[in-house]
Amino acid sequence: MEVSDAIANRRSIRKYTGEEVSDNDIKAVLEAGRWGPSGLNNQPWKFKVLKGKVKDSIAEHTRYGHIIEAAPACIAVFLDVENSYNRDKDLQAIGACIQNMLLRIQSLGLGAVWLGEILNQREKVEETLGVEHELMAVIALGHPGEEGSSDRKDMGELLLE
Amino acid sequence: MEVSDAIANRRSIRKYTGEEVSDNDIKAVLEAGRWGPSGLNNQPWKFKVLKGKVKDSIAEHTRYGHIIEAAPACIAVFLDVENSYNRDKDLQAIGACIQNMLLRIQSLGLGAVWLGEILNQREKVEETLGVEHELMAVIALGHPGEEGSSDRKDMGELLLE
Repeated sequence: MEVSDAIANRRSIRKYTGEEVSDNDIKAVLEAGRWGPSGLNNQPWKFKVLKGKVKDSIAEHTRYGHIIEAAPACIAVFLDVENSYNRDKDLQAIGACIQNMLLRIQSLGLGAVWLGEILNQREKVEETLGVEHELMAVIALGHPGEEGSSDRKDMGELLLE
Repeated sequence: MEVSDAIANRRSIRKYTGEEVSDNDIKAVLEAGRWGPSGLNNQPWKFKVLKGKVKDSIAEHTRYGHIIEAAPACIAVFLDVENSYNRDKDLQAIGACIQNMLLRIQSLGLGAVWLGEILNQREKVEETLGVEHELMAVIALGHPGEEGSSDRKDMGELLLE
């Protein structure tokens, strides 16, 4: 899939068919995240692939738990606090890393949604998963069961003279 | 260009040929940024295209000013503070937006580097440019005058069991 198409056509997908996501596809998605850019190339991210009961165990910590339960797989993304050097820059790097994964998911014909509301209970999620890093986001992914839709501001609103 | 190739082959490019970047290419890059994902779809970004004297006027505010001067164009990315709702999520969104632009730049056959060190003097940059938003990054771009190189941690280091 062309970069420009993936960027313009990607939408949040919150409904999935029952089909599993293959290990190869998940590996490709993680690989895309691995190639994210970061300040000083510090790569301040950690990933945890969630499936089955472990995945469902974090559903209670967000009002979007039904999406986590419906998705065949999730990828939890953490800030590697020990490798963090500048929080503002590291958070941007995490966002770039996640966008790599979302675009790769799109190019594989899969769909995903970036879940952020779960950060309200991030400490509970970290405890449930037994992870000693700071949760940044959960990506729920699967084979798309909806088209999704979204819009954006006009360029005129974004561009400073 | 395929998404997976753009992601895996993108490198920071800090040297450029003398060739200008066309307005159409810059428009395509900004358009990619516009389609970035954000929490509540708040799209907390503003862009300013810098060329010529205006571009060079910010070079003194970073030790990488020579890159800004060498690049035919820069895009300054700001946090739209009034539209910000959660700093952690907004910074991640800005990173995703920037990654969209970097990948689009790559797919256009151009090269870029994400400059973050300039944030050390971001208030001076904002004042010099007369912008009342918070500087997040400057992207310097042009026709590649070098190949660039980089590496990443092994997946085993990133993946939590």
